[in-house]
Amino acid sequence: MADTPAIPQAIKRIDKVTYSREGNVNRAVEHDVVVTEQPLQINLLWHNADLITESKVFAITMRSVGDEVCLILGLLFSEGVIKHPSDIASIYVENSSEAQNTNSWQVQFSKGIAPNLTSIERFQATYSSCGLCGATSLKALELKAPVNLLNSTQGLQIDVDLIYTLTVKMRTQQQLFNQTGGTHSAALFNQTAQLLAIYEDIGRHNAVDKLIGKGLKQKTLPVHNQLLVMFVSGRVSFEIVQKAVMAGISILVAVGAPSDLAIKAAQRFELTLIGFLKDDSFNLYHGDWRIKA
Amino acid sequence: MADTPAIPQAIKRIDKVTYSREGNVNRAVEHDVVVTEQPLQINLLWHNADLITESKVFAITMRSVGDEVCLILGLLFSEGVIKHPSDIASIYVENSSEAQNTNSWQVQFSKGIAPNLTSIERFQATYSSCGLCGATSLKALELKAPVNLLNSTQGLQIDVDLIYTLTVKMRTQQQLFNQTGGTHSAALFNQTAQLLAIYEDIGRHNAVDKLIGKGLKQKTLPVHNQLLVMFVSGRVSFEIVQKAVMAGISILVAVGAPSDLAIKAAQRFELTLIGFLKDDSFNLYHGDWRIKA
Repeated sequence: MADTPAIPQAIKRIDKVTYSREGNVNRAVEHDVVVTEQPLQINLLWHNADLITESKVFAITMRSVGDEVCLILGLLFSEGVIKHPSDIASIYVENSSEAQNTNSWQVQFSKGIAPNLTSIERFQATYSSCGLCGATSLKALELKAPVNLLNSTQGLQIDVDLIYTLTVKMRTQQQLFNQTGGTHSAALFNQTAQLLAIYEDIGRHNAVDKLIGKGLKQKTLPVHNQLLVMFVSGRVSFEIVQKAVMAGISILVAVGAPSDLAIKAAQRFELTLIGFLKDDSFNLYHGDWRIKA
Repeated sequence: MADTPAIPQAIKRIDKVTYSREGNVNRAVEHDVVVTEQPLQINLLWHNADLITESKVFAITMRSVGDEVCLILGLLFSEGVIKHPSDIASIYVENSSEAQNTNSWQVQFSKGIAPNLTSIERFQATYSSCGLCGATSLKALELKAPVNLLNSTQGLQIDVDLIYTLTVKMRTQQQLFNQTGGTHSAALFNQTAQLLAIYEDIGRHNAVDKLIGKGLKQKTLPVHNQLLVMFVSGRVSFEIVQKAVMAGISILVAVGAPSDLAIKAAQRFELTLIGFLKDDSFNLYHGDWRIKA
């Protein structure tokens, strides 16, 4: 059974005017639902060597409301700010005088643990995790990526016929998308193409972060000695490959196209990269030894 | 005739393995092209009151290669860092010892002009232009948006039948998308649905910035006393509405869904917002007085 998060707060009711050239009614007011988009501020709190509390705003990002703990955990991990979920003691909504300011969250680090400030600075300078321009993006990823993870799944394969089943399995589970048409999805499948978890968000990178954060909480990610498939609904940018590599995923499958830098990163980290997945065909850009034809 | 930028540097040749369940050949190596994705660092340079040169890295963003001057101009304008294109004296590739480091660009401000540092700081903290969490996103936009622009086009209308023609006109012009499937498009149409300009990029916000930057260079944007339609290929986030509002666009048309915050921003700034445009139907979320049915 897939782990599907609750969705009500992620959508909102609205009124719209529908226009049509066909039928008798060419203009009508109707009810509909749309996906929410709200800023999320992430505040890091930790004790320094003198036991004095330090703090830093890590990022403000636009996201659909819901699953903030997973989102924050996944983001901090894939950006290299934490090495392990246990680096964090608690994640909670900021206490403020304003009622229900659920857009500002506190991350309290565990005793003796501080965030990786270099990663924070790099993230704040770049957001898109592209690395500083002095170094190349690939080099920046090399600095923080645990390259040994993928080696451990080297001998594992997935049957090519199972790849073709992924789209249908996703379609029925994309609840937010099916209601609003406004979200991206990210899902995790095991070697037998069983759906393990799926998350949706207005931002594709957020959906991936929520998925990875959930895996970190459940200690199913990063992956060791098993083959996991991560599925994303849209296109594949460098950022999505980076997140997959950091989580130890061995096969990344997308409905859309990859960028050149996404392919280069997949080659460097031996990630199997599939794009343009349709019911009867797909393109593979790297790592065909993991596909059993 | 539409203003179509040159495209060769925006794409790259790759090899891929195609898998198929139909036909005799189920696995074949083929050539293909993909869209490029590279980091772009934007360095601002200006003279302070003592005529000493100051500098600041504005942002690093991932983008498809090409049209950097337009991208930088559009981004700085829509983020409120410049008030007018003449604030900038020149935009050029950074001179460095590395050969062809075309990912780092210098922006030299005009004499006596300094960048709006508040906008820079807000942008660096947020990237997504969502405003600081203390204020709401809408309030942050109110602080910098020229709300009088849209009022000046209040009496103007576009024929509903022209709206239905936009998709077909876009389809033939999306050269990068038609080759790679990996880009978003943003285009500008006038009141008679004539295509004025189209830009494509791996990032939807970059395509919009390039489009707006080109209009700023040609002095056709921001708009005064005429109706312009901006078309975007994907969904509509708050960020896209913000850029349309800053450029004085009166009608924003998207193929995809809007977010709740995008609708709220359209309501606040009286932008006509259309989503889910198909050949024979569309949804209108605000501003139906600009549509002549």
